[in-house]
Amino acid sequence: MSPKSLIPSMVFLLVLLGGSATRSRRPCKELVLYFHDILFNGGNSKNATAAIVGAPAWGNNTILAGNNHFGDVVVFDDPITLDNNLQSAAVGRAQGFYLYDKKEIFTAWLGFSFVFNSSEHRGSINFAGADPLMNKTRDISVIGGTGDFFMTRGVATIMTDAFEGEVYFRLRVHIKLYECW
Amino acid sequence: MSPKSLIPSMVFLLVLLGGSATRSRRPCKELVLYFHDILFNGGNSKNATAAIVGAPAWGNNTILAGNNHFGDVVVFDDPITLDNNLQSAAVGRAQGFYLYDKKEIFTAWLGFSFVFNSSEHRGSINFAGADPLMNKTRDISVIGGTGDFFMTRGVATIMTDAFEGEVYFRLRVHIKLYECW
Amino acid sequence: MSPKSLIPSMVFLLVLLGGSATRSRRPCKELVLYFHDILFNGGNSKNATAAIVGAPAWGNNTILAGNNHFGDVVVFDDPITLDNNLQSAAVGRAQGFYLYDKKEIFTAWLGFSFVFNSSEHRGSINFAGADPLMNKTRDISVIGGTGDFFMTRGVATIMTDAFEGEVYFRLRVHIKLYECW
Repeated sequence: MSPKSLIPSMVFLLVLLGGSATRSRRPCKELVLYFHDILFNGGNSKNATAAIVGAPAWGNNTILAGNNHFGDVVVFDDPITLDNNLQSAAVGRAQGFYLYDKKEIFTAWLGFSFVFNSSEHRGSINFAGADPLMNKTRDISVIGGTGDFFMTRGVATIMTDAFEGEVYFRLRVHIKLYECW
Repeated sequence: MSPKSLIPSMVFLLVLLGGSATRSRRPCKELVLYFHDILFNGGNSKNATAAIVGAPAWGNNTILAGNNHFGDVVVFDDPITLDNNLQSAAVGRAQGFYLYDKKEIFTAWLGFSFVFNSSEHRGSINFAGADPLMNKTRDISVIGGTGDFFMTRGVATIMTDAFEGEVYFRLRVHIKLYECW
Repeated sequence: MSPKSLIPSMVFLLVLLGGSATRSRRPCKELVLYFHDILFNGGNSKNATAAIVGAPAWGNNTILAGNNHFGDVVVFDDPITLDNNLQSAAVGRAQGFYLYDKKEIFTAWLGFSFVFNSSEHRGSINFAGADPLMNKTRDISVIGGTGDFFMTRGVATIMTDAFEGEVYFRLRVHIKLYECW
């Protein structure tokens, strides 16, 4: 190979490396998962996967507060499933907290992890962000990961897939990872 | 162009790509914004944008606790403005929580998002970090973003711009983003 | 130098830049530190470094709740030491919160910062992630940093180094940073 003919291939290599190292908007990995939240309401302690642990002065820890639940803080340990069926085998747990943070409409803020425990995935993905839950879809940040998801970052699009009153909701989570190590 | 003359320009391109892909301490984007926190104190429910939702055993959810508010957890939905005037048009909301975490002096820990809703910006910026609020300026982390701020990371320098007793404070936030996608 | 002889060195440079900019699993910085948590139990207000600030309906803010403390939220300001001795000089404080988030066994979720204040380190490291604390070691994410740890990311392996009943525990934290700026 002459130097002349090497140059185009080097430019290609350069663009390739630059592309992987800089910023591509094409995900390096994608997952779609569901998780299921059953809020403790005083009578469902067997099934509940979540509990109110903080509330404003006008609320308490058994019933979601007025003013669109503003100030309610909920801790959860929710099963993660591959499809939208609560009875499906869980591939891990969604663990962390959400809090309602607006008086006028429902909005929330989330800090939680997907902790995987299946033949397919080990490790965890950590999430944080605002959840304006009256919107059909909302984007939160993937802020890190461990194990199979070592050092990952990305964006997760969440969608309320179903809900029953104020006791049950199911979220569909489309995880798009843009940094894979 | 001869191969010889191509090489310098390739080196330049290489350095350019390397520079953007590795670590530059020059921000790729900067914003200066203000947000305004009015804490519910039992009597200001109309104006309040924040509420105590957790407190230590020696406190309650209407008045900030003794011991420099150690243990108080506050949920907020604060207007973001372009200047320091609470009456200015809000370009979005700062939503999330802070907690006081030292007995001897005031310090806090923050987890929140800027959720933009203006002609200029759509999307969100997510923040986390320690706020030793007796210091004139403090740095927290930008841990992710969505929409216009897709996948961003950076550092935000916050400054208490004003406060009135324990009910109102205004923070100036200088956001410096070092990863832009 | 002829163009021909320049090309190998450019390939080397290219790989070098690509390597630093993409993803190396070799840490760019490592630290091993300990922190010490003394939980307020109603009688140890002098020594306590942590307090329960949220609890489920079946709990309160003085004693950790039943069901493996599910729903308890704890705010802390814990000394960080270089060795495992609580009496050693603190090089900073671990500040933030943890919450217990499983009914069947002990697991927790952490959001906190190491705030350094020593001759060796200034600045902060921010952490988030799931802590399945019955495992000997657990990995959480380093989601950002400031000062000496400007813009850092990584993984921290935590280990319960000691505990005494439900009042004291000591964590060993092995911080491995993979992004250094």
